[in-house]
Amino acid sequence: MAFRAKKLINNPDDVVTEFIEGLVETYPGLQYLDGFPQVKVVLRADVSSATNDKVAVISGGGSGHEPAHAGYVGEGMLTAAICGDVFASPPVDSILAGIRAVTGPMGCLLIVKNYTGDRLNFGLAAEQAKAEGYKVETVIVGDDCALPPPRGVAGRRGLAGTILVHKVAGAAAAAGLPLAKVAAEAKHASELVGTMGVALTVCTLPGQEVTSDRLGPGKIELGLGIHGEAGAAVADLQHVDVVVSHVLNQILSTETNYVPITRGGRVILMVNGLGSTPLMELMIAAGKAVPRLQLEHGLAVDRVYTGAFMTSLDMAGFSISIMRADPPILERLDASTKAPSWPVGVDGVHPPTKIPIPVPPAPSAKGDEPQSRPVQLSEQGQVLEVAIETAANAILNLKDTLNEWDNIVGDGDCGSTMYRGAKAILEDIKNYPLNDAAETINEIGSTIGRTMGGTSGIIYTIMCKAAYTQLKRSSGSVVAPKQWAEALAASSAAVSKYGGASAGYRTLLDALLPALSVLQEKLNAGGDPITAFVLSSEAALTGAESTKKMQAQAGRSTYVSSELLSTVPDPGAMAAASWYRAAALAVQEKYKS
Amino acid sequence: MAFRAKKLINNPDDVVTEFIEGLVETYPGLQYLDGFPQVKVVLRADVSSATNDKVAVISGGGSGHEPAHAGYVGEGMLTAAICGDVFASPPVDSILAGIRAVTGPMGCLLIVKNYTGDRLNFGLAAEQAKAEGYKVETVIVGDDCALPPPRGVAGRRGLAGTILVHKVAGAAAAAGLPLAKVAAEAKHASELVGTMGVALTVCTLPGQEVTSDRLGPGKIELGLGIHGEAGAAVADLQHVDVVVSHVLNQILSTETNYVPITRGGRVILMVNGLGSTPLMELMIAAGKAVPRLQLEHGLAVDRVYTGAFMTSLDMAGFSISIMRADPPILERLDASTKAPSWPVGVDGVHPPTKIPIPVPPAPSAKGDEPQSRPVQLSEQGQVLEVAIETAANAILNLKDTLNEWDNIVGDGDCGSTMYRGAKAILEDIKNYPLNDAAETINEIGSTIGRTMGGTSGIIYTIMCKAAYTQLKRSSGSVVAPKQWAEALAASSAAVSKYGGASAGYRTLLDALLPALSVLQEKLNAGGDPITAFVLSSEAALTGAESTKKMQAQAGRSTYVSSELLSTVPDPGAMAAASWYRAAALAVQEKYKS
Repeated sequence: MAFRAKKLINNPDDVVTEFIEGLVETYPGLQYLDGFPQVKVVLRADVSSATNDKVAVISGGGSGHEPAHAGYVGEGMLTAAICGDVFASPPVDSILAGIRAVTGPMGCLLIVKNYTGDRLNFGLAAEQAKAEGYKVETVIVGDDCALPPPRGVAGRRGLAGTILVHKVAGAAAAAGLPLAKVAAEAKHASELVGTMGVALTVCTLPGQEVTSDRLGPGKIELGLGIHGEAGAAVADLQHVDVVVSHVLNQILSTETNYVPITRGGRVILMVNGLGSTPLMELMIAAGKAVPRLQLEHGLAVDRVYTGAFMTSLDMAGFSISIMRADPPILERLDASTKAPSWPVGVDGVHPPTKIPIPVPPAPSAKGDEPQSRPVQLSEQGQVLEVAIETAANAILNLKDTLNEWDNIVGDGDCGSTMYRGAKAILEDIKNYPLNDAAETINEIGSTIGRTMGGTSGIIYTIMCKAAYTQLKRSSGSVVAPKQWAEALAASSAAVSKYGGASAGYRTLLDALLPALSVLQEKLNAGGDPITAFVLSSEAALTGAESTKKMQAQAGRSTYVSSELLSTVPDPGAMAAASWYRAAALAVQEKYKS
Repeated sequence: MAFRAKKLINNPDDVVTEFIEGLVETYPGLQYLDGFPQVKVVLRADVSSATNDKVAVISGGGSGHEPAHAGYVGEGMLTAAICGDVFASPPVDSILAGIRAVTGPMGCLLIVKNYTGDRLNFGLAAEQAKAEGYKVETVIVGDDCALPPPRGVAGRRGLAGTILVHKVAGAAAAAGLPLAKVAAEAKHASELVGTMGVALTVCTLPGQEVTSDRLGPGKIELGLGIHGEAGAAVADLQHVDVVVSHVLNQILSTETNYVPITRGGRVILMVNGLGSTPLMELMIAAGKAVPRLQLEHGLAVDRVYTGAFMTSLDMAGFSISIMRADPPILERLDASTKAPSWPVGVDGVHPPTKIPIPVPPAPSAKGDEPQSRPVQLSEQGQVLEVAIETAANAILNLKDTLNEWDNIVGDGDCGSTMYRGAKAILEDIKNYPLNDAAETINEIGSTIGRTMGGTSGIIYTIMCKAAYTQLKRSSGSVVAPKQWAEALAASSAAVSKYGGASAGYRTLLDALLPALSVLQEKLNAGGDPITAFVLSSEAALTGAESTKKMQAQAGRSTYVSSELLSTVPDPGAMAAASWYRAAALAVQEKYKS
């Protein structure tokens, strides 16, 4: 089935000019020559031929390899980039216009990828510029290591290694070196780097009809170029570890002898995405390449550049470049540049890559001893024990009812989830430090966090942790009623904040918030704390019942019709109201006795 | 047809840990906590809880959005990033480990994207950390503008706008502000930004079986999230201009009132690639969004960030974020950072985006007058005229033979191409400044460049330009024989350099190089120049004939069998030998007379 490739473009003929327009909107340091559609030249906004007292470094070629080359224009790297149409060499007049726009008395260096069209067009522009009196040197980069040893440079394509040559030349020019030396450094750099690509898919051109991918499922191409041309070999897709190993062996092959790198040396690694391969996968490849270079090839890796530096539109795959890391080369690569697409943060000393996980602090205020039940319970400890047990038992009894309700409005496990937590609390309570209410609440949170699971498990854990932090603010060993209210307020606020719900969302907050409101009101009015607690728990029940009338605003119930919702209350709200009610009645009972 | 998505990975379960390993190999400023597979935390290598005297800024969430969030770890931005599995919130213990590792006495700010899992896990970690005595604040970002106005923040997902919040918070923390103020700035920033996404394809998860894309050909989804969830609407793929316009209208809608931006205001634009959309297309979208914001919405655009900042694995598409550009926000966004994935080169004053193309210099040494035939030809002028005419006529006569040979070894048009050039020269010769040999050669180059076309056209133009530049170096009006030899040497060198061929490659160099060699030898030996020229032209013919025995090393002939190649000489070489031979004999004849 043939269909037009999906592209976020306008007219396919305008993609390069519109790209340049967006580029200069993004980067105020860049400008372009006003010569669309023929002349497509991006240049440094701070340089002109009249003022340029450094060697101009110019590159370019067919478009479709973005950010190459326009993204490398900036102080310390390229002075101008000449953009051809997609995968087409720029015309001579465009190259000449670029040369004339930025070349001063120090001359210019043209860095050209080794493709016939680029060589000839840049070559003619160079000869024309020389005829006009400009000093011009040309360096041709052919870093491809995929093809069998050739006939000179002619057989090797220019690939991502070209970007490293740009950087070396740009830094040499920025250092004020004369043209011959800048050209010599660029040529030297081009001889030190080798590249090989791997593709999972081929690219689709703007406006192109796409037929089926020439690569079937489960196949990859090794040694492809950057214009969708066929690779040197097709292979089965394997673990990236295996692919990386193969590519490194090919680049460093002593048979082809493409790069002058030998065991014991130092290298620079570039893992370059071809367009649509996620950064995650590029980083995985880089992470695997480094130890292989070290262990299998006996090389030290001085720098790793990972990213999309020279792409092929939307091709999936990557290329790997290896460059010999001579100290002067490193100095040029590390030199600062304003080119927006040159990677930052790559230089500097490598500390150990991993550091130990910090040990959690000892349980606060308690030293190193684990929490345990006091030998003798205080009065509050006794009340707390009864309240917890009664509340937990209320949940055990509600298991089936909650599940039934949840079957209608949710995924049917509310009762079981709550049951798990309550059961675990009843088991763990024998170790709770019941005389310290704050620490006990904290322990309940830990029990729930360990056992309950699900969203409810996290929400109840958050509630306990927030209550604990609030309770710890009071120093007394006995917690006053108002402090309990503050703890409930802190819990509710945390649930609302992290859970994203408010009153009326048909959640447990519709039990807790009315309860909190009544509790605070009664206590503030100076009422009896136990009565206030009991009245508050009635408000919780009423609030939970009222969820029947509410439209769900969070969680799974949002997908249930309001008709169905009106038949049952929110099980989470009913669970909260129930344990709270049970606790209140238990406390009342305890103080009565 | 279902098949496994092609990914350059190893075990799908290890992608995040292996990503982190590659990340820290790439960026020496980053480290990770030694806690794989559960704890996946990337942190600044230069910060620890023991030494951190600034507010720590921590974010994270599910992986698959690279470079978010780990790529934003660095001085001036995030202190740590907590990485969950792909599209899965990180567990509480991992978040807690990150908090403990980097948080000092100033506390930490957690920036959380608005997804339930992230809210709850970060929330619990925050409450646990507070319980341990840490100062913790949390800001939740929900910048999505695709869904209808909600119920508070709950309905709005956290998208690429989160990256801008990271930057504001990180810069505020780096400035030494206390936690409350850092959190307030982050919250403020989160309220100023709105985002909407557009997808062309959905993403494929590592290890996932892929069935057919839910989006058919020619369809796009508007308002999708970053986890492959369905968009708010499906639409026909249209020009990106239209798509951008729709997205901007949606974000800036006064109906939803999601962002507090009104006509006459100033904004920041972020165009974010979702994974596999080429940078070219992102730049096109940015280039279209800027004038639309200016003209249709009456907004000034202060900054444009274009790139892949928050992706969804390999999803094709982009999101656009618009943020109100308050001056304090701009100051935070422009503040320097070492985070490797924060874009560089975006701030600064925008000069005019385009500058005029430089005017070509006037024809050198000649002032402004066009080249023209002298009224009176010098002796050399007469010789030159005869040589050029005879050489051109030789090519006219060879047309069919050259085409015949080229039919066997190339694309069959060598004769026609050469004919076009020769014919044009014979027409233009009436305007050549024949008394100035250098300028005449230059004019021949211009004629060929204008008319001949093809690779041969460029190569002959290069030859003429190189010869011209060489001839111009001599000041005399009469060109000495040695200067002609130097010009031929410069021409041959240029052809070899830009064409990529050498002797024996079965090209025109196999005629020119032997000719040059004989010419130099005879002249150096003090021989008669005309005899030297004639002998040299014999060498050219012999050389061209000898190409029959050569294997092609450049151009189309490389695909032809050596058997077939041995039946004919290289037509390009024969053409070169023929016009050179004709010129030599014409010069000999002229001087005889």
